[in-house]
Amino acid sequence: MTVKVKLGDNNYGKADVRLFKVFRDRPQHDIKDVQVRVAVTGDFEAAHSVGDNTGLVATDTMRNLVYALARDGLTGSIEAFGQHLAAELMARGPRVTGARVTLTEHTWARLMSGGQPHDHSFVRQMPKHTATVERTAGDTQVESGIDDLYLLKTTNSGWAGFHRDEFTTLPETHDRILATVVSARWTYRTPDCDHDDVWQRAYTALLDVFPDHYSPSMQHTLYRLGEAVLDRCPEMERVHFSFPNRHHILYPLERYGMTNPGTIFHADAEPYGVIEGWVERA
Amino acid sequence: MTVKVKLGDNNYGKADVRLFKVFRDRPQHDIKDVQVRVAVTGDFEAAHSVGDNTGLVATDTMRNLVYALARDGLTGSIEAFGQHLAAELMARGPRVTGARVTLTEHTWARLMSGGQPHDHSFVRQMPKHTATVERTAGDTQVESGIDDLYLLKTTNSGWAGFHRDEFTTLPETHDRILATVVSARWTYRTPDCDHDDVWQRAYTALLDVFPDHYSPSMQHTLYRLGEAVLDRCPEMERVHFSFPNRHHILYPLERYGMTNPGTIFHADAEPYGVIEGWVERA
Amino acid sequence: MTVKVKLGDNNYGKADVRLFKVFRDRPQHDIKDVQVRVAVTGDFEAAHSVGDNTGLVATDTMRNLVYALARDGLTGSIEAFGQHLAAELMARGPRVTGARVTLTEHTWARLMSGGQPHDHSFVRQMPKHTATVERTAGDTQVESGIDDLYLLKTTNSGWAGFHRDEFTTLPETHDRILATVVSARWTYRTPDCDHDDVWQRAYTALLDVFPDHYSPSMQHTLYRLGEAVLDRCPEMERVHFSFPNRHHILYPLERYGMTNPGTIFHADAEPYGVIEGWVERA
Amino acid sequence: MTVKVKLGDNNYGKADVRLFKVFRDRPQHDIKDVQVRVAVTGDFEAAHSVGDNTGLVATDTMRNLVYALARDGLTGSIEAFGQHLAAELMARGPRVTGARVTLTEHTWARLMSGGQPHDHSFVRQMPKHTATVERTAGDTQVESGIDDLYLLKTTNSGWAGFHRDEFTTLPETHDRILATVVSARWTYRTPDCDHDDVWQRAYTALLDVFPDHYSPSMQHTLYRLGEAVLDRCPEMERVHFSFPNRHHILYPLERYGMTNPGTIFHADAEPYGVIEGWVERA
Repeated sequence: MTVKVKLGDNNYGKADVRLFKVFRDRPQHDIKDVQVRVAVTGDFEAAHSVGDNTGLVATDTMRNLVYALARDGLTGSIEAFGQHLAAELMARGPRVTGARVTLTEHTWARLMSGGQPHDHSFVRQMPKHTATVERTAGDTQVESGIDDLYLLKTTNSGWAGFHRDEFTTLPETHDRILATVVSARWTYRTPDCDHDDVWQRAYTALLDVFPDHYSPSMQHTLYRLGEAVLDRCPEMERVHFSFPNRHHILYPLERYGMTNPGTIFHADAEPYGVIEGWVERA
Repeated sequence: MTVKVKLGDNNYGKADVRLFKVFRDRPQHDIKDVQVRVAVTGDFEAAHSVGDNTGLVATDTMRNLVYALARDGLTGSIEAFGQHLAAELMARGPRVTGARVTLTEHTWARLMSGGQPHDHSFVRQMPKHTATVERTAGDTQVESGIDDLYLLKTTNSGWAGFHRDEFTTLPETHDRILATVVSARWTYRTPDCDHDDVWQRAYTALLDVFPDHYSPSMQHTLYRLGEAVLDRCPEMERVHFSFPNRHHILYPLERYGMTNPGTIFHADAEPYGVIEGWVERA
Repeated sequence: MTVKVKLGDNNYGKADVRLFKVFRDRPQHDIKDVQVRVAVTGDFEAAHSVGDNTGLVATDTMRNLVYALARDGLTGSIEAFGQHLAAELMARGPRVTGARVTLTEHTWARLMSGGQPHDHSFVRQMPKHTATVERTAGDTQVESGIDDLYLLKTTNSGWAGFHRDEFTTLPETHDRILATVVSARWTYRTPDCDHDDVWQRAYTALLDVFPDHYSPSMQHTLYRLGEAVLDRCPEMERVHFSFPNRHHILYPLERYGMTNPGTIFHADAEPYGVIEGWVERA
Repeated sequence: MTVKVKLGDNNYGKADVRLFKVFRDRPQHDIKDVQVRVAVTGDFEAAHSVGDNTGLVATDTMRNLVYALARDGLTGSIEAFGQHLAAELMARGPRVTGARVTLTEHTWARLMSGGQPHDHSFVRQMPKHTATVERTAGDTQVESGIDDLYLLKTTNSGWAGFHRDEFTTLPETHDRILATVVSARWTYRTPDCDHDDVWQRAYTALLDVFPDHYSPSMQHTLYRLGEAVLDRCPEMERVHFSFPNRHHILYPLERYGMTNPGTIFHADAEPYGVIEGWVERA
């Protein structure tokens, strides 16, 4: 082989680590159900180019670390645990210079029993709480997010006034169904905050604002949701949304001699629109 | 070719029909979000053996039928709509003698706004409502069910006293995590009942009984859940559960000089146990 | 609770057991990559009704059994191993009276190296080999199958002469794309046969016959495929196919002043037709 | 609301556009089966902040464009079509200033018939061909890739000499199974090349080099694969791999009095290692 090559940006780690913690030191058990992915960066040149593993931390060790640190280090939010875990990953072996931790928390609600919250039984809830921690020698970045939040409104949404050219066949509408699955993430200007409390306020803001306005576009709703979230969460720096636009298409019942006054729809699986953007403090 | 063959049992239809209906004839919109599968049986021998399609209903027509019938025929439960749809499928062409309709309803909760239920905005909920209708010339069978209901308890569950042989390495336990995803379905002894009300009572029974007892096995919990559901739903004939046993395995922290008093678990993705059974009226 | 209940049909076992075997006792390594599901039936009444686990085999033991038996018992086809495994499951504890083993084999091709088959490197192939063994005291039933075989032809397929009524909008066609994902399974009239050889002949028959005729319907192609498979595999008793009809819809380019002579299609994800049926010896 | 906000980076488009093209202008039909995602960037501030859609291209129009342009513009590689599509997206309306096109091509092999390649029948193959085109006013970037290529070797792989600390329990090994699913992508230094030919050479290089060496780590194999790909494809600038390390764990059969000399493994689904990196020309 005559080609001369070198190693570029690289990282390695462990994905789909399924961590589950029970807090038994209280009258009612609490739980944390978290899917974790960890990765490190550093001086891994020799391992790649000549197969010398000296100083390399094994991904199996990283996995062990997730469980071991969770014992005493996972006490509150996944954001706090992620920072702790990233710091410990940085200390694994002589070669690591950066760490990234990605966490997805499944949310569970406590079951009720005889009108009272049950002390050890839970039912899974829909939205997920996500977080990412990026750490290098001099810096730590924390992002949090919400995933799998399905929202839908049957009216008070439209799409009109847009550009038309020879490939435009979509009619304008001032009354359509708007349906999406919220995927949100945000950065912080106040790193040392109560991340779970921020998450709860952001979640509530989404539920409050989604229905409260006429939506001329998914883009405008994105902006209003971002504005509301930043308003209620002064700890946030900026927020990003990725919105699939799950199209609900009026089914052409007139072919069978029927009217269809906004009643019967085909909920199209694909293709779907995607609207993405950051809303930032001005 | 010297082999002599004939057609055996067969059916055809349309899957993944995504029907969405908005009820606008009331102060607050209601919605139905249903994934439908339809299939017919009948005298389809000529189509198979000699390619003669005479009298065959197209699956595209079946799809149209789902949407068209939903306009006036989907007014309450998916069970009632499924029966209506099955009857209409039976009337398609001269060859159909049986129909099967499978329905999966996504459940949505109404959003709140200013302390009041909002009139057109919704958020998706976790468990699904399923139904199957089987219809032949002389008979209609209706089944209903619940899918994707994740339940978990952190204690008050064990697995002991079981058979041990040379391949048994699992220790007995009187304190483990019990986690499952309920998949339930039931038949009726009172076909003309309020299916949505039965579903709601069955769902509530599961949430009430799952936490209320020491579970010596998933099998016993299955039995108790079946008993409770049949007790609260006199309309039901019998109920079937399929329970994945989502194992939560204590992580061996002693390797790092730590104790692990029922705190840190690996939530294993696979393999998983599966416990299935019918509970019937005695 | 006043309701009286009893246990109906039931079974339990282990799913998603991921077994991988390397055969090192030969110049070139062979491999078996199999996903296994096992379940037992029997007298499990006491476990369900009163929580008495006496005599119950743990699903963890079943899992151990899969790996342990594979050591010496998995030497050829998954059908042979499935029968061996089912027999051993029947011997677990005093309560088991029936066993079902479901196997999905991932197929791998040997890599080439310098024009020669490599002795220990493999690349995954598309279709899967499936098998199910059902065993009771007096009887063993074996089924085999093929999964995830995507076939497509761009012409020589149509759909015409079918029933039309007020809900029929589909035009007749004598030239369409036919695309499906074959899911086949068959029973044997010669249980003691070379199952891998039968599988290979069935697979080849599908590839040979799918292109060789004008297809007036998926139903007729199903019949011809069944005929060919039974002709080439005298060991088979009957064969079942489940064919999704993956619709390719001509995109309406005339809206932009373009013709579309069978060129540009939308490959629709859903809904899709499903055609299912058995072909049997006459 | 007192918060002041502004729009940050944003884009919108259409995902999961399923394009299928048949080339009938030759004795043997050819096909292209491509999943397309398109997105545009530009001056979309008014749409977000005040709901003014003037000049906005609808995602429905983008979808139409994919199909319409494919009629005459998709003649060879998806990379060439992606560039054409990106250029046309830039011309949609007054506001677009950038476009991104992501393409995933399903590969199909021609069926044989009587020893000859059949002229219109195909069977789906495993690896996918991916491509991304990013275009702004002054610049176009093209990336290509390979997805879903499962490779496995049963020996000639190890993992030893790595860092050990209190959380390291993994023993060293000089003989293990190495299994991965290749996800590769590369940039070009010769944009006007035969992209399909490069893809084929890259694919062949992976199949040739994966088995040809002792692998002391996934990292080293990554490096060697990158070196080979760059050697055989002078058109490439650099190549990135993402390798899940699909662990195959020796099953502890000694618990049943059996030896396990590298024979029986549990193919673990999760967690899995991930090794990622760029290999670049030196």
